[in-house]
Amino acid sequence: MTDWSVTIEAAREDDGSPIFVRIARAITADIRRGRLRAGDALPGTRTLATSLGVHRNTVLAAYRELFAEGWISSAKAKGTYVSVEIPEVAPKRFSPKAVLTREIAARAGYDVESGARGPGGGPLVESTPPVIPQRGPSLRKGALMTLGGGMPDVRLVPAGELARAFRRVLRRSALEVLSYGEPQGPVALRAAIAKMVSATRGVAARAEHVLVARGSQMGIDLVARTLIRPGDVVAVEHLGYRPAWEALRAGGARLVPVPVDAHGIDVGKLERLADAEQLRGVYVTPHHQFPTTVTLAPARRLRLLDLAREKRFWILEDDYDHEFHYEGRPVLPLASADVHGVVLYVGTFSKVLAPGMRIGFVVAPVPIIDRLATTRRYIDRQGDHLLAMAVAELLEEGDIQRHIRRAKRIYAERRVRFARLLETHFSGVLSFELPSGGTAIWARVSADVPVDLWAKRALEAGLVLQPARLFSFDGKGRSYLRLGFAQHDEREAKEAIGRMARAIPRRARASG
Amino acid sequence: MTDWSVTIEAAREDDGSPIFVRIARAITADIRRGRLRAGDALPGTRTLATSLGVHRNTVLAAYRELFAEGWISSAKAKGTYVSVEIPEVAPKRFSPKAVLTREIAARAGYDVESGARGPGGGPLVESTPPVIPQRGPSLRKGALMTLGGGMPDVRLVPAGELARAFRRVLRRSALEVLSYGEPQGPVALRAAIAKMVSATRGVAARAEHVLVARGSQMGIDLVARTLIRPGDVVAVEHLGYRPAWEALRAGGARLVPVPVDAHGIDVGKLERLADAEQLRGVYVTPHHQFPTTVTLAPARRLRLLDLAREKRFWILEDDYDHEFHYEGRPVLPLASADVHGVVLYVGTFSKVLAPGMRIGFVVAPVPIIDRLATTRRYIDRQGDHLLAMAVAELLEEGDIQRHIRRAKRIYAERRVRFARLLETHFSGVLSFELPSGGTAIWARVSADVPVDLWAKRALEAGLVLQPARLFSFDGKGRSYLRLGFAQHDEREAKEAIGRMARAIPRRARASG
Repeated sequence: MTDWSVTIEAAREDDGSPIFVRIARAITADIRRGRLRAGDALPGTRTLATSLGVHRNTVLAAYRELFAEGWISSAKAKGTYVSVEIPEVAPKRFSPKAVLTREIAARAGYDVESGARGPGGGPLVESTPPVIPQRGPSLRKGALMTLGGGMPDVRLVPAGELARAFRRVLRRSALEVLSYGEPQGPVALRAAIAKMVSATRGVAARAEHVLVARGSQMGIDLVARTLIRPGDVVAVEHLGYRPAWEALRAGGARLVPVPVDAHGIDVGKLERLADAEQLRGVYVTPHHQFPTTVTLAPARRLRLLDLAREKRFWILEDDYDHEFHYEGRPVLPLASADVHGVVLYVGTFSKVLAPGMRIGFVVAPVPIIDRLATTRRYIDRQGDHLLAMAVAELLEEGDIQRHIRRAKRIYAERRVRFARLLETHFSGVLSFELPSGGTAIWARVSADVPVDLWAKRALEAGLVLQPARLFSFDGKGRSYLRLGFAQHDEREAKEAIGRMARAIPRRARASG
Repeated sequence: MTDWSVTIEAAREDDGSPIFVRIARAITADIRRGRLRAGDALPGTRTLATSLGVHRNTVLAAYRELFAEGWISSAKAKGTYVSVEIPEVAPKRFSPKAVLTREIAARAGYDVESGARGPGGGPLVESTPPVIPQRGPSLRKGALMTLGGGMPDVRLVPAGELARAFRRVLRRSALEVLSYGEPQGPVALRAAIAKMVSATRGVAARAEHVLVARGSQMGIDLVARTLIRPGDVVAVEHLGYRPAWEALRAGGARLVPVPVDAHGIDVGKLERLADAEQLRGVYVTPHHQFPTTVTLAPARRLRLLDLAREKRFWILEDDYDHEFHYEGRPVLPLASADVHGVVLYVGTFSKVLAPGMRIGFVVAPVPIIDRLATTRRYIDRQGDHLLAMAVAELLEEGDIQRHIRRAKRIYAERRVRFARLLETHFSGVLSFELPSGGTAIWARVSADVPVDLWAKRALEAGLVLQPARLFSFDGKGRSYLRLGFAQHDEREAKEAIGRMARAIPRRARASG
């Protein structure tokens, strides 16, 4: 029988957070330090409520939170137990087998064979249509909804804890955060990020290897402005992430698209490109490729790292939603296997926390970080040290980690539910695989449904859809949609899919 | 006899701010709406305390605040009165006589005649030493102090009100500020800034003319990246502000320095430059020129505006510390007299509020604002909407305006006290005029004191000094120092000047 008095004592310590949070934390602390183990029974809610002198609803709220975060499970009428699969803290090392064993044939076919001069034969189409991918709020003013992929549900953000963190920082460190600070960001957050990527992503880093940027976008922009000379060739994934292309191009790069297939960027083609031209760098999203959601195959990862070393180009790795991986553990980034210092690693809290909180980071060798910091002085001089310190606190306290676990569990459910809705409503129209991670489904659209017209009609009906054209270098359409599932609850998802169904264009028929 | 019951009622309304603040606000509201007029007597502190049911110290605190902000004055033993010169809200229109009547001969001599090929004869020296002007915190960790000019005293910032504003915004608009937002900034702040510059700076603007940037630096960077093509000629003041030069150069500009004299940038020389070459733009700080603190003479202002229209170049006007003007009202910006739409107007809250709060703005025609916003998407996508909304609240509530009045009064005192200390300690070494505004004194150093050596020795003694070399285009030293007076209280100013005095190099003597 577990002794609950320690837990109860811990839950009684008033640190300013709501009681149910304190109860939940006291229990997770017990699980972490091994006082409670997988399968152990938790006390009944009435019993615990009486011991703590709180209302039973408070204990119920704490248990709901623990359930959402995956710490406990409930067997009907048999009480509540510590989960058998409790969230692990230490990362699994990258396993080369993890991805190869999965066949993802259904995802093939969205590379750019047609109409492209091909890598090694110079740049493909350099002109970019001015459309900006919709990664906006999930419910806009009025009735506009978006199935744009890549957005978290900001309603899950612990806004109250954030406000308290702001208050604490302003109380304790007002002079520090209000004065000019270092362009690299405050050392407290740089250290917390270094600790996080070391502990959970296998990227060995100390504070001096980290620059706090305003989202991954500024990380990319800083690299573009610092490490590209006009005319330098930079390879990018195709299909790919347009805002990164724009920043790289603004930095002077001549972009060359390299096709993406079911196993990520085609490293063989990249190699032929690197043989033909002096490559300065390559921009990749290996974990959940944007927009196709595929994971870079292990053999390609290793070849890419070797190639960068041989041909002396840098790899700009954008790991924009590392944590949201639902099948097994997240795949460790390229940066974790980079022994030659060729990877510039970019991450962000925009996806795991809130897009409006512009906190991202670059992890790189110290001389690079120093050069990026110099560039940064002339962009906006420095970041938001108040926000940065508040985020550092939330990381130190584990609030962000708790939020991630909770969001991940919710998104995992939404992923499955959304997929089921798509199958029900668009049988024969959409085909897709459940993505192993991320916040969106990449769906192939039946050839007889004009996808761009569908998106146009959907917009008229108050729904933003993202067709493949938005992610293409040559401005051509392709029969794919990127569909975000994370930002909508069940009711909203149904409404959005209803609008999507009503907007579907009549299929082209054989004439006559 | 004034009826105080309304004031007392207003002061009783609990809006979450401290009681003394509420009392002070109730009284200023009465003054604004004319219930109290210049010279009216205020009730005694005991009487008011009894009426309000608060401790007398609370009323004393309120009166001290009102005194600091300039609303009331005290005639010894005769009680407290509404100031005869209460802070005006409406701006005085720009008067051509205001500046011309002052002779500022002592400030002349810091232009770049020697060693320069001269405007119209192509660019001067293009290489820039990598030294970054010290605009860091006033008291660094350890014992390092700075007399770097341009810094406010962040201890005056209403941090508590800021924290409350954050909390209110997170409570009321969490979804809005946590989601992706517009790169131009939230409309609430754009509208508040438009209202502010319209009401106090004579710049007719609506929300759509405003882009919220991260300090004036990002405003300059956005203009540089959007409105400069590689090789474009952009004229800059010399001496001048290096971080702006760096941003303009990174945008592709070929910079041409134009000398500054006692009346600001030499518009005659600029005109000859514009005759000889196609000028794309000019970057100026007309109000308190950086670093020399001079104000652009009225005749030159008018000629500059005409010239820009004739020669079709833009004027990037950086009005970085508009409010801190101690002799009469602030001079209205060029933008207030710009009928042809040639001025891009940049301002910031970094100086009036806190450097670490990166909120600045660009005011420009709508098509320009739209183009800047597109550029911004690829830098950091958007600003801090949480911070922006909090600042909008503080502007709406008048908190920032109150802070500015208070800070201005304190800085005005520090300016005089600091000047007196300089005169006492450096008679025969420094000569200067009291600047009409800003946060720094521009002092000529006697020719027999090597100024760069002085700065070097001062740094060894724990004091940052800014010699003219930091602001020069050709990297050459000149016998001037920029000395900030705003950030130090009396004790600190004495300590800093003590260090400065101990670090003074022995004067060069005639040999033998």
